[in-house]
Amino acid sequence: MATDNQQKLLQKNKQYVATFDKGDLALPPAKKYLVVTCMDARIDPAAAFGIDLGDAHVIRNAGGNAKDAFRSILISEHLLGTREIVLVKHTGCGMLTFSNTDAASVIEKNGSKVPHALDFQPFSDLEKAVESDVQWLKANGSLASGVEISGWLYEVETGEVRQVA
Amino acid sequence: MATDNQQKLLQKNKQYVATFDKGDLALPPAKKYLVVTCMDARIDPAAAFGIDLGDAHVIRNAGGNAKDAFRSILISEHLLGTREIVLVKHTGCGMLTFSNTDAASVIEKNGSKVPHALDFQPFSDLEKAVESDVQWLKANGSLASGVEISGWLYEVETGEVRQVA
Repeated sequence: MATDNQQKLLQKNKQYVATFDKGDLALPPAKKYLVVTCMDARIDPAAAFGIDLGDAHVIRNAGGNAKDAFRSILISEHLLGTREIVLVKHTGCGMLTFSNTDAASVIEKNGSKVPHALDFQPFSDLEKAVESDVQWLKANGSLASGVEISGWLYEVETGEVRQVA
Repeated sequence: MATDNQQKLLQKNKQYVATFDKGDLALPPAKKYLVVTCMDARIDPAAAFGIDLGDAHVIRNAGGNAKDAFRSILISEHLLGTREIVLVKHTGCGMLTFSNTDAASVIEKNGSKVPHALDFQPFSDLEKAVESDVQWLKANGSLASGVEISGWLYEVETGEVRQVA
């Protein structure tokens, strides 16, 4: 029995298929860049950041975290030819609202097993978190050399994005 | 000096802001679900899977990998109240095209440092990879109990999605 969300997925996908005409796009991103951003429900990267289908890899996780995205970034660069990283964090991020101790205690309270030594990677200063991720990427010897790396902030209140690093 | 991709981002974002009227959405996903899918440039989850702004977390990485998404999934469930996981892998995935040895040798050839013991998590059978991730999630004691988990395949050739697990 399909859930409400599964039913909506199937119904909306049927409409998507009816007008779909991009079946021959190449595997490597045409514009040779990748975007790292947050999983937050209030961000639609394609619409907000103007990414056309086939143009860029989009990596999303809690916080738009560069370290967490590392495996994907290396694959994108070294195996699929991207040469530019656009990292976008956002206002009102959930990662600003809890500590590792808070996360562990909620998981325990929910009756689930607290994973051993997992860093949930919360942060307390948004702009510093962008700068710190950009610096970490720039200093990382595993990335391809000459990759362009920039850091941005997205405002969930206005839809506006601005460069900060 | 902004790159072409940065200039397009700014230009398209200006248009997005001009008609943006969703500045008051809540932080937790309204429809209490999360989507895990691939970073592949040929996937637009919001459009293809019918996700309205504010409705769902979207986690993306190379391969739509559940283990890689673990930190984000725990945060989504335990701290932001989602209760359903929709995992979508896709045809023509880059993860079907290389081995860990291949990845390491390309990184080395590019003059970059091969990261120690990094599993790039490629796979050789698409449908089995979906099933295996769904099983891994269902057996994982750190997830909240009673979470609905389903596995899907997206066809980049047609835009169609179908449930496989």
